[in-house]
Amino acid sequence: MKLLRLLRVQELTYNQKEKRLASAIKNIVGSKPLNLSLYTLAFRHVSVSKEIKSGVKISNERLEYLGDAVLGTVVAEYLFQKFPYRDEGFLTETRSRIVNRESLNQVGQKIGLPKIVESEMDGRVPNSFKSLYGDTLEALIGAIYLDRGYYFCKKFINKRLINPFFDLDNIIATTTNFKSKIIEWSQKDNKEIDFELKSLDNNQRFKEFTVCLNIDGSSFSEGKGPTKKKAEQEAARIACEKLQITF
Amino acid sequence: MKLLRLLRVQELTYNQKEKRLASAIKNIVGSKPLNLSLYTLAFRHVSVSKEIKSGVKISNERLEYLGDAVLGTVVAEYLFQKFPYRDEGFLTETRSRIVNRESLNQVGQKIGLPKIVESEMDGRVPNSFKSLYGDTLEALIGAIYLDRGYYFCKKFINKRLINPFFDLDNIIATTTNFKSKIIEWSQKDNKEIDFELKSLDNNQRFKEFTVCLNIDGSSFSEGKGPTKKKAEQEAARIACEKLQITF
Repeated sequence: MKLLRLLRVQELTYNQKEKRLASAIKNIVGSKPLNLSLYTLAFRHVSVSKEIKSGVKISNERLEYLGDAVLGTVVAEYLFQKFPYRDEGFLTETRSRIVNRESLNQVGQKIGLPKIVESEMDGRVPNSFKSLYGDTLEALIGAIYLDRGYYFCKKFINKRLINPFFDLDNIIATTTNFKSKIIEWSQKDNKEIDFELKSLDNNQRFKEFTVCLNIDGSSFSEGKGPTKKKAEQEAARIACEKLQITF
Repeated sequence: MKLLRLLRVQELTYNQKEKRLASAIKNIVGSKPLNLSLYTLAFRHVSVSKEIKSGVKISNERLEYLGDAVLGTVVAEYLFQKFPYRDEGFLTETRSRIVNRESLNQVGQKIGLPKIVESEMDGRVPNSFKSLYGDTLEALIGAIYLDRGYYFCKKFINKRLINPFFDLDNIIATTTNFKSKIIEWSQKDNKEIDFELKSLDNNQRFKEFTVCLNIDGSSFSEGKGPTKKKAEQEAARIACEKLQITF
């Protein structure tokens, strides 16, 4: 089976629509699909899915779930390697700014998914599904992972998605710093805030800092962490949440 | 460098402590480390980390961030393959029940991390860090991924973590069904609840159901989804959250 796929024997049996899909995939991914049915599935939105037995529908949602995980890992490693001196808080936050509905949706559109989606859905593309292309992009990543394996998929994500489409410098410049957000807020609203170190649990050299954020002299939120800086960030994060400060 | 690692030349330079660590890793992982320094790092808790320059500490937290992502992907695929007829909601939920602090902590203890942690921390193991072994397990997965690559790491997770330590049948039996939870709650609290289909957006064959959950006749929460069942689950989930129903 695998040999037949590698020899691309199935290509001989493609109909017109399948030929179109295979060549569109080649444009996006850089090489022809081995198992085209995975890609057909990746473009099958739940709203046009077929019911194969009672309650079981075949749609791209399962591939989307898988692709979401693979994308998360590849981006995690990308940032891990690129920023050897940044802590995991920074990495996690930067990742969530890369992998989110809106940015994936934009990238999905830029690499040309709308045309394929339209063709695969026979023109019935809905306007109401805002994250359609982001979801489809994740499903496509799931299909590539199953079709070509982890390392091929990783290369696809790094070379054809992250490098050309994500402006990392810009993303990093705006990565949320809760402490600075709350300070900004206090200046605008003319409030007095300060971070007060409440306690330091120094048990057996394991430090836990507890920091209290006071607003106009009275305690407003509390954060804990292994460093003073992290405890302050945590206290500020909770305060931002309580105050419903948006970013 | 890679050749030297494959030939395990570095083993000749191990001191006593490193020899102990290498053999402990071999017991857990099934083969000796190629790059031992990754594993040393995996066991360096932030509280015993060294500051290499101002503000930059070397600890296992970055590896933990990476390992968490890799573990998520491997478990995602494991469930994807094992349950070909279950939808992504089920898969996501089951995954989060496998990959959570508490269960990872238990598995970390079962595979023998406490002994290594103790040795690597020269006996200064804290009692206060509840998720110490779960965090260390994730960092170890990150180290294995960097040291041996994705497929080796995947095999380790499937064969040595999921299969022996996770009782999937039991996890699945208790996977949260929000609708049944809210029905249970209503019966206990003697409330009248019903799910009411508010609207069905059937634009160009793309369906979006909106379901309202009424409690004692008045609207309490609303859910949307591509099927009626999903919209109901979503409405029930929001209601559970509002009512602070715990599981």
